Amino acid sequence: MKNNDQILNLFENYLAQMQFPEEPELLYKPILYSMSGGGKRIRPTLLMLACEAFGGDVQQALPAAAAVEMFHNFTLLHDDIMDNAEVRRGKPSVYASWGDNVAILSGDAMMIYSYRLLSEVPADKLARIMEIFTTTALQVCEGQQYDMDFESLQKVSVVEYMRMIELKTSVLLAGAAAIGAVLGEASDEDCRQIYRYALELGLAFQLQDDLLDSYGTQEELGKRIGGDILEGKKTCLMLNAMSRATEEDREVLRSTYLDKSLSEEQKIERVKAVYDKYDIPHLINQQISLRFERALSILDSLAIPKERTEHLRVFAQNLMGRKK
Amino acid sequence: MKNNDQILNLFENYLAQMQFPEEPELLYKPILYSMSGGGKRIRPTLLMLACEAFGGDVQQALPAAAAVEMFHNFTLLHDDIMDNAEVRRGKPSVYASWGDNVAILSGDAMMIYSYRLLSEVPADKLARIMEIFTTTALQVCEGQQYDMDFESLQKVSVVEYMRMIELKTSVLLAGAAAIGAVLGEASDEDCRQIYRYALELGLAFQLQDDLLDSYGTQEELGKRIGGDILEGKKTCLMLNAMSRATEEDREVLRSTYLDKSLSEEQKIERVKAVYDKYDIPHLINQQISLRFERALSILDSLAIPKERTEHLRVFAQNLMGRKK
Repeated sequence: MKNNDQILNLFENYLAQMQFPEEPELLYKPILYSMSGGGKRIRPTLLMLACEAFGGDVQQALPAAAAVEMFHNFTLLHDDIMDNAEVRRGKPSVYASWGDNVAILSGDAMMIYSYRLLSEVPADKLARIMEIFTTTALQVCEGQQYDMDFESLQKVSVVEYMRMIELKTSVLLAGAAAIGAVLGEASDEDCRQIYRYALELGLAFQLQDDLLDSYGTQEELGKRIGGDILEGKKTCLMLNAMSRATEEDREVLRSTYLDKSLSEEQKIERVKAVYDKYDIPHLINQQISLRFERALSILDSLAIPKERTEHLRVFAQNLMGRKK
Repeated sequence: MKNNDQILNLFENYLAQMQFPEEPELLYKPILYSMSGGGKRIRPTLLMLACEAFGGDVQQALPAAAAVEMFHNFTLLHDDIMDNAEVRRGKPSVYASWGDNVAILSGDAMMIYSYRLLSEVPADKLARIMEIFTTTALQVCEGQQYDMDFESLQKVSVVEYMRMIELKTSVLLAGAAAIGAVLGEASDEDCRQIYRYALELGLAFQLQDDLLDSYGTQEELGKRIGGDILEGKKTCLMLNAMSRATEEDREVLRSTYLDKSLSEEQKIERVKAVYDKYDIPHLINQQISLRFERALSILDSLAIPKERTEHLRVFAQNLMGRKK
């Protein structure tokens, strides 16, 4: 079996040999820019690891892995327009470099490319894999719409938030794992289980992302701490705090980011004081651990020898930056 | 065999029973708005007629027909953002009604839906049909990019223009016809031929569209005559005239739409005078007839009895508003 680094390496080599037409330049150049712009390749790696765990040929899983990565990058192109995001992976976003129209149309072409790649899977598995992929892709759109809806909503519940991040980020991880399992000829039950493994892991990852934004180190986060607080974002910390706090403290949570009399440091400090008062970091950490452990225990339920799931275990630990 | 009206009727009924989720409303409501907003259903009708011509079951062709219509409508949602087009089929465009972000994301969901519909074709034909659909879809994106590129180019040749409209509008007609033929179990050669029939017909239709914009009646066109001239658009009339005119006349063609001393009527009159001087309407009419006749003669080359192509002949005549 190939380990996680070997699989990542295989995938990067596959991507590197992918060719796009030269013309029209403004359609295809942004695709190459986006696909060669790095990223952790989490989804394709997971797809290939899932395939391998069930004894499938990782080589054969490369096009589907690329399809999932292409789809993910397509969502980034369009999300960056919707969010006016100028920077992506430390470089100007496609939207910032080429403008809306190019980002829209190149994104469209990337989605079509992802289906082209997907259609390279063995013919007897195509219908099943398309069904998983398409359902997942629609859910990702739903998640993005809910995320935008939430910005203008006064009140968002913790349950609604969890459903949104599940759709926006976790289902694509889960879909990737399930497609890999199908390619590895896993049973229907094992496909369902590995889908759940990736879903729990994705949720743990997203909760940790929220937590680190306020409580991590600049090193862990790769950017300045407190961005979510300064934007007044409805994160899992904010929504859990809102659901527990007194009306007085809720008003602090609601209004601090808009208070022009405060420095950025003061805003961050004030909101975190409320989070700490209600023990929110501890609460979120518990939820992260719960989901992470659940993900790992699902691996034990698969109908394959435990040693075959080792790389999926390592993948989970790496993703969460944990050692077990 | 069902005639063209019966096929259109069948298709409208199929669309009418399609259901979309209620939530998130801003994702799915624009899809319903777009799909139920009329349109001539040219592409799905052609797909079903092609299927029927080869003895296929039109009922079975409905999902693929809907996929092609869904894809076409998706391109309209995104094109309207890129072109700032406020009106579509006499109603506010999705972009004008809900804004860019909704038009981007609902459009994305529509493209995914089109693949979901496509995946309902018989499993043994799925890979082949996906290949046609995906190639076509990428070409449509290329055509849209060239169209945008041309706006800022000083010089566009007639050949480049023909290639652009082929990609932007004709290939989707051609792809629809080929998919219908595959569903009807046509031979590879017949699939290629019917693709060419639809390609020629699409080009004839687009050339006629350009011609009517300057030389039609308001009735034929459904909007005021001369819009292309007033916008200074690089149409087939303009580009053919540019390639034939003296430098002096070329300057008239280049500058008239920008001349603030002229009324709209004067601008239209002045540009048409140059077109007439070089016999452009006659030239374009010849090209339309040539392509139209070529399309019909391709039907004669198909390996099926001539009477089976009758509805495709009528389709071509209806599309061009011609009686034979």
